[in-house]
Amino acid sequence: MNIKKLYNDTVIGVIFMKIAIIGGVAAGTSAAAKARRVNPDAEIVIFEKGRNISYAGCGLPYYISGVSESRDKVIIFSPQEFTEKYKVEVKTGHEVTEIEPRDKTVYFKDSVNGLTGKYLYDKLIITTGASPVIPPIQGAEPGNVFSLRTIEDADEIVKMINKRELSRVSIVGGGLIGMEMAEAFKRLDLEVDVIEKQAHVLPTFSAGMAEIIEKHLKENNINLLTGETIVRLSGNSEGDVKSIYLESGKEIRTDLVLISVGIKPNTELARKAGIKIGPTGAISVNEKMETSLPDIYAAGDCVESTNLITGNPVWVPLGSTANKQGRVAGENAAGGNATHRGILNTSITKVFELGVARTGLSEKEAREAGFKAFSIKIRSVNHAGYYPDMEKIYLNGVFDKKTGRILGAEVIGKEGADKRIDVLATAIYNKLTANDLFQLDLAYAPPYSIPKDPVALLGLQAEKEL
Amino acid sequence: MNIKKLYNDTVIGVIFMKIAIIGGVAAGTSAAAKARRVNPDAEIVIFEKGRNISYAGCGLPYYISGVSESRDKVIIFSPQEFTEKYKVEVKTGHEVTEIEPRDKTVYFKDSVNGLTGKYLYDKLIITTGASPVIPPIQGAEPGNVFSLRTIEDADEIVKMINKRELSRVSIVGGGLIGMEMAEAFKRLDLEVDVIEKQAHVLPTFSAGMAEIIEKHLKENNINLLTGETIVRLSGNSEGDVKSIYLESGKEIRTDLVLISVGIKPNTELARKAGIKIGPTGAISVNEKMETSLPDIYAAGDCVESTNLITGNPVWVPLGSTANKQGRVAGENAAGGNATHRGILNTSITKVFELGVARTGLSEKEAREAGFKAFSIKIRSVNHAGYYPDMEKIYLNGVFDKKTGRILGAEVIGKEGADKRIDVLATAIYNKLTANDLFQLDLAYAPPYSIPKDPVALLGLQAEKEL
Repeated sequence: MNIKKLYNDTVIGVIFMKIAIIGGVAAGTSAAAKARRVNPDAEIVIFEKGRNISYAGCGLPYYISGVSESRDKVIIFSPQEFTEKYKVEVKTGHEVTEIEPRDKTVYFKDSVNGLTGKYLYDKLIITTGASPVIPPIQGAEPGNVFSLRTIEDADEIVKMINKRELSRVSIVGGGLIGMEMAEAFKRLDLEVDVIEKQAHVLPTFSAGMAEIIEKHLKENNINLLTGETIVRLSGNSEGDVKSIYLESGKEIRTDLVLISVGIKPNTELARKAGIKIGPTGAISVNEKMETSLPDIYAAGDCVESTNLITGNPVWVPLGSTANKQGRVAGENAAGGNATHRGILNTSITKVFELGVARTGLSEKEAREAGFKAFSIKIRSVNHAGYYPDMEKIYLNGVFDKKTGRILGAEVIGKEGADKRIDVLATAIYNKLTANDLFQLDLAYAPPYSIPKDPVALLGLQAEKEL
Repeated sequence: MNIKKLYNDTVIGVIFMKIAIIGGVAAGTSAAAKARRVNPDAEIVIFEKGRNISYAGCGLPYYISGVSESRDKVIIFSPQEFTEKYKVEVKTGHEVTEIEPRDKTVYFKDSVNGLTGKYLYDKLIITTGASPVIPPIQGAEPGNVFSLRTIEDADEIVKMINKRELSRVSIVGGGLIGMEMAEAFKRLDLEVDVIEKQAHVLPTFSAGMAEIIEKHLKENNINLLTGETIVRLSGNSEGDVKSIYLESGKEIRTDLVLISVGIKPNTELARKAGIKIGPTGAISVNEKMETSLPDIYAAGDCVESTNLITGNPVWVPLGSTANKQGRVAGENAAGGNATHRGILNTSITKVFELGVARTGLSEKEAREAGFKAFSIKIRSVNHAGYYPDMEKIYLNGVFDKKTGRILGAEVIGKEGADKRIDVLATAIYNKLTANDLFQLDLAYAPPYSIPKDPVALLGLQAEKEL
């Protein structure tokens, strides 16, 4: 807030701070909500080119499958609700077309009436997110090829499922979204093919762990086609893809194609405004989420982060990080002083019954970062054998031979994988060693663990190699 | 192993190291198993005064309630199995009556035939555990008053349940065992009264958190009598207690009384041998689990530990600690070099549907240790609202006003309490601050958490008070 004072203490004019936010999903709404809490008087405006804001991107597979009760459930706030709760102006259907940093102006276009306008900001927060990478598809734009990024994408897929007689769907790309959608489609009683170019699904996982996931996918009747490249799609007269031809010669019949080969950060606006783009291709920001230009912040899937182990810039777009970064950007834009130090690339996904999680560096990444890294894989159980529903749990740890420090981990299990990955992420955050993992005083009772928790066992096993 | 060499390299006699272990439950069998792995040639003997070894003390409530499939399930190894697997001589029904450190001799009595004997050790490990504290009961020894510590105790309770027509049982003492047994008896369709002298059950918990537990107990039809002192028990002609009279004037009818007011370390043998007893009343050991006398180690519920925050000796008898300490004692006795640095007093128990967990210092303990401590309590949820079975989760954190460091925590919730307490225990182990809790890169996906995990929210809330 700029308060113009003339003489003595007589305030004759108050100009409220104006904060503009480009993008209204995870980072954007977190930024707006936090900015409002920090600065009750600021004028805060969100420009969102889509029709919805504040929805849970991570919830879309559960909306599609019906695991989530309704579409409404994945929308945390409607624009009206958000405005009411946070006194933030929400302009949906408004695409920002240009940032002019010298005049502190954003130019926008209203998609409903085509009118354009501009907004003068004191502080700007860029939360433009990321977009799916869609490989070029031969021929016309097919009506049954989708990606899943926004709630509008999900709506289209749901419409297609409700409208047509689908029996077989193909997922191109076996990453996190590919895995979640394989489960979602299977719940809808569809035959599911997953086509992955790499040798294994979830290529950030070590091969041994990925094989456990693949076994589980097959047990759940997912057709896995790993190490397969698509040569050609072929369609019918209505413009729908009906067959996918693979390099191996296989032909996959399909009624719907979901492309989930990856996403790329939406940086065009920032780039054109002269904001520094980092080596990862995403917007470069510091711990305060400040970009290279004054009074412009950025957060979420469009920015890069710092890997807490290597100190290197990395781009790992995830909802939890977006949420935190948005909060930090919002707080700082509104006059506060917050930081987001970086990430460990921690992620988890549920693949049918399995929790599949990772954190830190892979063995390969650790070696590239200069560590003398080795891996330890153990099989343990989630809790005491005499308590019902004991389940196997697999842990893979990456350790530094020189110091014994844990650098990365993967955990897979039906129950308790999320717990162990979070303990290991906390351990890695603190540069703990294999021996520390044994020393940790974790909570034990028969329904929750075993007297020596799998995390302790991983540490003991690693210590033998030091 | 002592190898007597005469000249050149001719070995003419080999004397194997002899390791004696007193007590064969958690710490004792852990010690034996680890000692065997470290030293394949040692002679290892366990003296156990009971008839069973290597059973899960923590599993006894689940054996009694039938949650565990069978009695066998809570016995990890029979003496025979243990001997076979680890080549360890197991002498059940053998009570050690004296340790003579100068001669490195233990004297024992065989309870079956009453014969006595002695055993010369090179290394001795004392794992004598703890015993229930039984307040004096007026009149003769009643037939229906029990404590629950050993599997033999559990057998007696099961026998009583199977034999008689019980309808109402009373539990004296609302600690961990009291809570677990309240659930166990309720599962057996008994009416259950819990009598606790303190104002709340689980007195190590803060009042606000204990109230959540008490509400849940009442919802599960447990009759709670807190702040109540027993004045008198009265029995029938067969010597059974049938009524409990409380100071408040209430009379509780009962068919079975379980006393769970606490346990005390079994230190008599050690004390008589001249081994140092610590300020807590348990055997004093260092990080290597060495006692004050050479070649004598101790581990498990009979020893004290170091509180990792205060550095003070504490006595917190728990299965997970016993297991680790046993392992360390076994490794060191057999010639290895391991340490157990201390504990955070982390514990968890399942009270019907609730996971109830704590770690670190309570606010009171923190103040006593010289911290300017304050508490923050938050209510959050275990996972995303649009994913089925979202449940409330309560966190209470104790922080140091000066540094922001987290010193202790309590977590209560139907799902995910075990995860959050383990993350917080790991955070406390590392002297993390409130801000660190926000910075942690924990795993997020809708079935497992919310974008800002309850642990991060606790940190954010605490930061506001700094």
